[in-house]
Amino acid sequence: MAAPLKDELDIVIPTIRNLDFLEMWRPFFQPYHLIIVQDGDPSKTIKVPEGFDYELYNRNDINRILGPRASCISFKDSACRCFGYMVSKKKYIYTIDDDCFVAKDPTGKDIDALSQHIKNLLCPSTPLFFNTLYDPYAEGADFVRGYPFSLREGLPTAVSHGLWLNIPDYDAPTQLVKPKERNERYVNAVMTIPKGTLFPMCGMNLAFDRDLIGPAMYFGLMGDGQPIGRYDDMWAGWCVKVICDHLGLGVKTGLPYIWHSKASNPFVNLKKEYKGIFWQEDIIPFFQAVVLPKDCDTVQKCYVALSKEVKDKLGKVDPYFTKLGDAMVTWIEAWDMLNSGEAAANGK
Amino acid sequence: MAAPLKDELDIVIPTIRNLDFLEMWRPFFQPYHLIIVQDGDPSKTIKVPEGFDYELYNRNDINRILGPRASCISFKDSACRCFGYMVSKKKYIYTIDDDCFVAKDPTGKDIDALSQHIKNLLCPSTPLFFNTLYDPYAEGADFVRGYPFSLREGLPTAVSHGLWLNIPDYDAPTQLVKPKERNERYVNAVMTIPKGTLFPMCGMNLAFDRDLIGPAMYFGLMGDGQPIGRYDDMWAGWCVKVICDHLGLGVKTGLPYIWHSKASNPFVNLKKEYKGIFWQEDIIPFFQAVVLPKDCDTVQKCYVALSKEVKDKLGKVDPYFTKLGDAMVTWIEAWDMLNSGEAAANGK
Repeated sequence: MAAPLKDELDIVIPTIRNLDFLEMWRPFFQPYHLIIVQDGDPSKTIKVPEGFDYELYNRNDINRILGPRASCISFKDSACRCFGYMVSKKKYIYTIDDDCFVAKDPTGKDIDALSQHIKNLLCPSTPLFFNTLYDPYAEGADFVRGYPFSLREGLPTAVSHGLWLNIPDYDAPTQLVKPKERNERYVNAVMTIPKGTLFPMCGMNLAFDRDLIGPAMYFGLMGDGQPIGRYDDMWAGWCVKVICDHLGLGVKTGLPYIWHSKASNPFVNLKKEYKGIFWQEDIIPFFQAVVLPKDCDTVQKCYVALSKEVKDKLGKVDPYFTKLGDAMVTWIEAWDMLNSGEAAANGK
Repeated sequence: MAAPLKDELDIVIPTIRNLDFLEMWRPFFQPYHLIIVQDGDPSKTIKVPEGFDYELYNRNDINRILGPRASCISFKDSACRCFGYMVSKKKYIYTIDDDCFVAKDPTGKDIDALSQHIKNLLCPSTPLFFNTLYDPYAEGADFVRGYPFSLREGLPTAVSHGLWLNIPDYDAPTQLVKPKERNERYVNAVMTIPKGTLFPMCGMNLAFDRDLIGPAMYFGLMGDGQPIGRYDDMWAGWCVKVICDHLGLGVKTGLPYIWHSKASNPFVNLKKEYKGIFWQEDIIPFFQAVVLPKDCDTVQKCYVALSKEVKDKLGKVDPYFTKLGDAMVTWIEAWDMLNSGEAAANGK
């Protein structure tokens, strides 16, 4: 099968701790350019097998490239991967964790996750009305009776959120309670998450259109020196969804599956998540209620407006959110610094 | 397998045109009571095979029982089935069309649609936040990381909307364009339709909790003497969804599948749908915008408030909606007339 969009997509990976990972994905990933963002000690070397086209950034590189603005990029946490979104010059990004392997579909065939993500991103989303037969643009499907004709063109798709077989993406309390649970349910569907509905976006197996939503894909302040971890992708997802809803963009979830090989340590996770479990009870109502000003017509403008709301409303929950709101602005400054040529070219 | 909820569920069927239908469903339906509502000529006799426990209503019965209020029940249209919802005294209703047969799951096993609907109705819905692994209460599934803990109890489920293999539920234009399309995609999922999102509710394979939402399950004025057909279930679905959102109830869609055996005539359908295709472009924005008064704390109060809005806002689109708004009130009066004992018992 020909690799679609070879020159328009980068694969961003936060640190590769095992070589099997790239070997297993070789048939699917080798045609693409990889951006590896190393999250820990810069003196350690990441070995990339022969034949892959890649660039690798460690903490020293991030500091050198962003200068003081490097403060917005997390250290010793996979949240650092968002630096890769920023340095990419491609239209599409696919990001995947190094403990995610190639899954098999119910017929036993290897799933080409990337190819499904590209399909998802290239065809429209339908956030304004629910289609009961799932993706109306999929082969053998369509809009059902009662679906307004004026809405059938759909909206551009900004995000494709893929799922996981084997180890499900559970929080620490659920991991502790159900240590043996495995996801064996292959759901053969892609769906649009309706407008006005928030979802938990997982960064394990995620693709997006950088041009449409890139500047909102900030994974926040996590890990070293921060009071919280494992909410990097969640934070990005909530910001992204609110901005997509505002700008008329779509977010899809469902296929493709990857095989998530190992559960992270629930005790370590509990420590990381501890504050997030409380905070999300305030964060969700905040994102459900937030309204972006009508004149915010670019992702950057939306994101800066959102950062103000975060400082204003969530700053009362914990001083961390004031710091995070500032980091959101720094992130946009850094994004624009690295993408000014492209931004100008796109008339942003 | 023991029949669950044997004494708490009625099966409502609008006219049975072929005997194969009940024979095929015998293993699943025989334990339940059937309510058959004959849509056409009352002098024609419907043959029900031996062994089924049923009651049958034709137009004469409806006129006799409801008197002048029988005007709210459609004639010569399967929309008349909603009379069955009204005369039932059970907590749950399952309604199915007589061209829907037992489907097989991907392993080749017959699907017990009723049993899956009951499962759907008995476990909560999650309309306030999206769970990416679908029904979090299903075996082998749960809420994923990032799902707020305060929302994990969910809300009571009022509606379970099942799907169709083989002939998909397409409108006439889509039928005309894709006469050979068949739905072969078995999607192994049940999901909650998020709060604030409308969906096209199909009456072919539908279950609901009469106590929770029954009085809103009105299938409108269709068929004989009316300018529109094939929007009966859609109309009910839009009203039901808005009222469920207002009252904090859940609506699910997905499993179970039935096998939809034959496509209705697309030319006949086009004639029936013609006006609906235009009107729905106004109906959808109406339902997306409508807000029910806070003091509407029962389905009846919500439905009467909605009928006023329909007359007020949609009456401008076509005089049909003024008539429909009046019929909605008549429907509630008829419902309360037949269900006053129960209504009193439930403190409504």
